Amino acid sequence: MDFAAWMESIQQRTEAGLDQRLPATAPQRLHQAMRYAALGGGKRVRPLLCHAAGELCGAQTDRLDVAAAAVELIHIYSLVHDDLPCMDDDVLRRGKPTCHVEFDQATALLVGDALQALAFQLLAEHQLADDPRRQLAMIASLARAAGSRGMAGGQAIDLAAVGRTLTLEELEFMHIHKTGALIRAACLLGAHCGAPMPEASLAGLDRYAKFSGLLFQVIDDILDAEATTATLGKTAGKDAARNKPTYVSLLGLTRAKETAAELCAAAHDALAPFGATARRLHELTDFIVRRSF
Amino acid sequence: MDFAAWMESIQQRTEAGLDQRLPATAPQRLHQAMRYAALGGGKRVRPLLCHAAGELCGAQTDRLDVAAAAVELIHIYSLVHDDLPCMDDDVLRRGKPTCHVEFDQATALLVGDALQALAFQLLAEHQLADDPRRQLAMIASLARAAGSRGMAGGQAIDLAAVGRTLTLEELEFMHIHKTGALIRAACLLGAHCGAPMPEASLAGLDRYAKFSGLLFQVIDDILDAEATTATLGKTAGKDAARNKPTYVSLLGLTRAKETAAELCAAAHDALAPFGATARRLHELTDFIVRRSF
Repeated sequence: MDFAAWMESIQQRTEAGLDQRLPATAPQRLHQAMRYAALGGGKRVRPLLCHAAGELCGAQTDRLDVAAAAVELIHIYSLVHDDLPCMDDDVLRRGKPTCHVEFDQATALLVGDALQALAFQLLAEHQLADDPRRQLAMIASLARAAGSRGMAGGQAIDLAAVGRTLTLEELEFMHIHKTGALIRAACLLGAHCGAPMPEASLAGLDRYAKFSGLLFQVIDDILDAEATTATLGKTAGKDAARNKPTYVSLLGLTRAKETAAELCAAAHDALAPFGATARRLHELTDFIVRRSF
Repeated sequence: MDFAAWMESIQQRTEAGLDQRLPATAPQRLHQAMRYAALGGGKRVRPLLCHAAGELCGAQTDRLDVAAAAVELIHIYSLVHDDLPCMDDDVLRRGKPTCHVEFDQATALLVGDALQALAFQLLAEHQLADDPRRQLAMIASLARAAGSRGMAGGQAIDLAAVGRTLTLEELEFMHIHKTGALIRAACLLGAHCGAPMPEASLAGLDRYAKFSGLLFQVIDDILDAEATTATLGKTAGKDAARNKPTYVSLLGLTRAKETAAELCAAAHDALAPFGATARRLHELTDFIVRRSF
């Protein structure tokens, strides 16, 4: 299967899995809002990474579906809360009104809360590993990735950074938490669905995930900056408008592109020990670099 | 140990356990806000129920500490989010400014999110049962109790009920979700920390928890109404002021008190099979009835 077909198949599995696992019973409005936030597209980057990492160790696809859904639910809840007026105050996401605009703020708050609970429910209810102790470790690692020393902590660092000049180290620290923690969890959970791997291999996968997560962010910043340049006279890029520090604002466009190239090479290097089983992970990194999504 | 001393010892263990498990590292402001919301008192009703239920089956105290902390963290996160302007818009809790007043709304949002993640992290990181499969079932039941068909769902039903006339059945349905689900989870998690119980016993404990949860709510409504009556000419009770349906508004004070007496008797009855091991659970029910907290 070529990469595009594989990617589409995982995106479809993810959509179908979420559709099946999101309730549609009472309370109707809450469940309707949860489904509104979670269904109908999205890049599904974390499910793609989870499935691709599962290929390193022959993980069963139905287990990967559950792990991928759980990680994606954490990601979706964070978007719903991030869009709220007290955070980024966004009214559009993927071309649709954000959850609190389509419903209301209180509902969007509860949607995020309930999606987080559902993520842990899925990981605990379905068998994901032959050894249940391993499954407990998977739950703990997703919880750490989502919590105050992971994603939620990264969002707090981001809040504190608006309007401030960050160093490159501070910017990287923020991204490693805000988006990196969950991307690493996506890869590790995928690997844990399969046959146990030596510690050194897990560490290699984790390095891959760390570099790819940062790469994703650098590319995001470059796309945002280039869109601004290309549409001179229009509203400046969202990040620049909010005085949010970015790789481009700190490094300039040229050095940001060099950084992207370095991270891309480092991500590929980290996969060297895995040989051909890492094909999808390699392809995903290349896709991040040339992405137009 | 008499009841008052036992209660104080569990409250102190809960405070100490949360203090120990809540990080104080970077990101400083987020962790400071999490500690502000979680520490410094509170009735700790759910930890009390968790420990009392553990006595039915000889659960180890250190396991109960972890389960109690996890349930309490879910409760605390729900209060932090419930106090936000888009929900109940409360500025005081336990005599202190609410989290979003003391910090800011975005921080309070992240505090709730991170406390929920920490609850699941604790349940997955510590050994709570000899059989790890049982521990997975405990995590799943806390997640269900917290989620859209439990607490978060109850809050959604509550939102939809403001200003509407509910039937008694609808009011009960709301409370069974909004507060009942987590109270039942507190009891069941406590029991699961100990020796396995027959299904019939677990069902009895669950009936106890259901009746006690409703009892707690009826008493709450009675106290709110009587405070209003006693302070004629002052602001009416919070619920009445918001046109929120209560047991007293639906049943009148006399019938509400009869309902409380019936629920109290039913809670005690449900404990009959447990004999003397249910002492603390009996005492807790009596304490709910005569509580002045």
